[in-house]
Amino acid sequence: MIDVPTLVEQARAGRPRAVARLISLVENAAPQLREAMAALAPYTGQAYTVGLTGSPGVGKSTSTSALVSAYRRLGKRVGVLAVDPSSPFSGGALLGDRVRMQDHATDPEVFIRSMATRGHLGGLSWTAPQALRVLDAAGCEVILVETVGVGQSEVEVAAQADTTVVLLAPGMGDGIQAAKAGILEIGDVFVVNKADRDGADATARELGHMLGLGEARGPGDWRPPIVKTVAARGEGVDEVVEALEKHRAWLEEHGELAARRRRRAAQEIEVIALAQLRSRIGDLRGDRQLDALAEQVADGRLDPYGAADRLVAGVTDR
Amino acid sequence: MIDVPTLVEQARAGRPRAVARLISLVENAAPQLREAMAALAPYTGQAYTVGLTGSPGVGKSTSTSALVSAYRRLGKRVGVLAVDPSSPFSGGALLGDRVRMQDHATDPEVFIRSMATRGHLGGLSWTAPQALRVLDAAGCEVILVETVGVGQSEVEVAAQADTTVVLLAPGMGDGIQAAKAGILEIGDVFVVNKADRDGADATARELGHMLGLGEARGPGDWRPPIVKTVAARGEGVDEVVEALEKHRAWLEEHGELAARRRRRAAQEIEVIALAQLRSRIGDLRGDRQLDALAEQVADGRLDPYGAADRLVAGVTDR
Repeated sequence: MIDVPTLVEQARAGRPRAVARLISLVENAAPQLREAMAALAPYTGQAYTVGLTGSPGVGKSTSTSALVSAYRRLGKRVGVLAVDPSSPFSGGALLGDRVRMQDHATDPEVFIRSMATRGHLGGLSWTAPQALRVLDAAGCEVILVETVGVGQSEVEVAAQADTTVVLLAPGMGDGIQAAKAGILEIGDVFVVNKADRDGADATARELGHMLGLGEARGPGDWRPPIVKTVAARGEGVDEVVEALEKHRAWLEEHGELAARRRRRAAQEIEVIALAQLRSRIGDLRGDRQLDALAEQVADGRLDPYGAADRLVAGVTDR
Repeated sequence: MIDVPTLVEQARAGRPRAVARLISLVENAAPQLREAMAALAPYTGQAYTVGLTGSPGVGKSTSTSALVSAYRRLGKRVGVLAVDPSSPFSGGALLGDRVRMQDHATDPEVFIRSMATRGHLGGLSWTAPQALRVLDAAGCEVILVETVGVGQSEVEVAAQADTTVVLLAPGMGDGIQAAKAGILEIGDVFVVNKADRDGADATARELGHMLGLGEARGPGDWRPPIVKTVAARGEGVDEVVEALEKHRAWLEEHGELAARRRRRAAQEIEVIALAQLRSRIGDLRGDRQLDALAEQVADGRLDPYGAADRLVAGVTDR
């Protein structure tokens, strides 16, 4: 028996176990999820979300951990959602190179959650926003969404944050890779990590050049800054936080924060609505209707579009 | 202006250009597609479809080409649908190692089509069955569906054929790979290609052992045969055709051919129906309804499930 009101109350009080159980409801698409989301809704909309993305090896995990430290120094409650579709582990498990996160494992004001989404119905676009709602309602003032993979859906999740950080490192031909993957477009703040290595200045220059090649910006437009860091030693991390705060202020000033959040909510609603419609179609599998239509299509008496029309009518007329 | 009735008539007469243009309608999700599918429907349901899948390097392309030759010797009109999601090329392009296919390029009784599906809305599950309908209506008695990639959706496409051939080659640790990828379950006929290489017997033995480990089969059940080939020299290919014909006879005898085709048609209908529902939701983006819902969710006044309910009601009540 899951007592949702109690769980929500405990999560709001910052109890890690309650937060973890609510996120598990999301991952498992549990029947109580709807009730939980309704109960959490009034407490959401406060957290500032930061997406972090970049190729493997740029130091995303280390940078995330360093950012957690920086925000903790500012006294903020911090949530971390690490999304790794390639890992079979989720829940409390700290993934592979996430050892640095253990620095924060005993801090009651830091909530860290890894999500494995491989094979999940609806995928990341379904689970990530709802997990964010849980962390948001749990009073996290800042939520860092680190996408470990570099697939399209991971990049999309990172891009749906209030502010998106794209990480690069020197000597990885990263600039060109980033341009190819289309992640230059989504970056609000760029970080060249491992800046103590050879080629850091060249990478930053190349990046600046590529960003300058984009469409002309107006006087009020946001110009993505490029910050150099050595996250493993904490160098430059305060400057990243500063850049994030500047971007946040810019978003608020230009009405963009509310607009981004509306767009994000619209996507979230769409994904759930589609899942609902899909499950209605799924219900029809047991029915004779789909069988009968399939037989007619297999026999060439009906074309698949005509059959789909009738199926849609069957779904929408109930 | 695309004149669908004329295109369909020409395709039925075996005119390659008309066949190619109809498949392009499928790939491009052209507005005329619905009309084309309706016009083709009465002429479908005749082709015997064979899916071929296996890891890169097992010789899928060579085997497909050798099978085309074998079926041509039997006087049959043959269609080939090569699905390569990793390639940006489609249409008439003969992909990379598909050079052998050029043996058949000038044969008017062979229709070869490569499909690139990366980024296609609805993906392979949408395009492949409809491309098969075109080849079917064009009078192809046998259609070989070769999936070049080894992703989940490619394997699914291969598995949706009347008969699915799983190819292996010696010395690739292929047996274990195949078991992992779950392709042992989908094979109706197994081919160990490159059987002139060391380890072919061991691969066949290992495979036979793994197949034997599956659930117990009843007396009337199909026992997937294992055929050894050297496709590049045409060796063993007639035996593969023989195995395919046996499987086809078994399917017919047990009512399984009709059942498989009904299942395939049901999936095809579902995919189109979902796309239709998705596009109805897309239409709402322009509406004020989704905007208003998104704003309420962003503000925490409504939870995303409640919003999705209203969106679904909006879609289904029109």
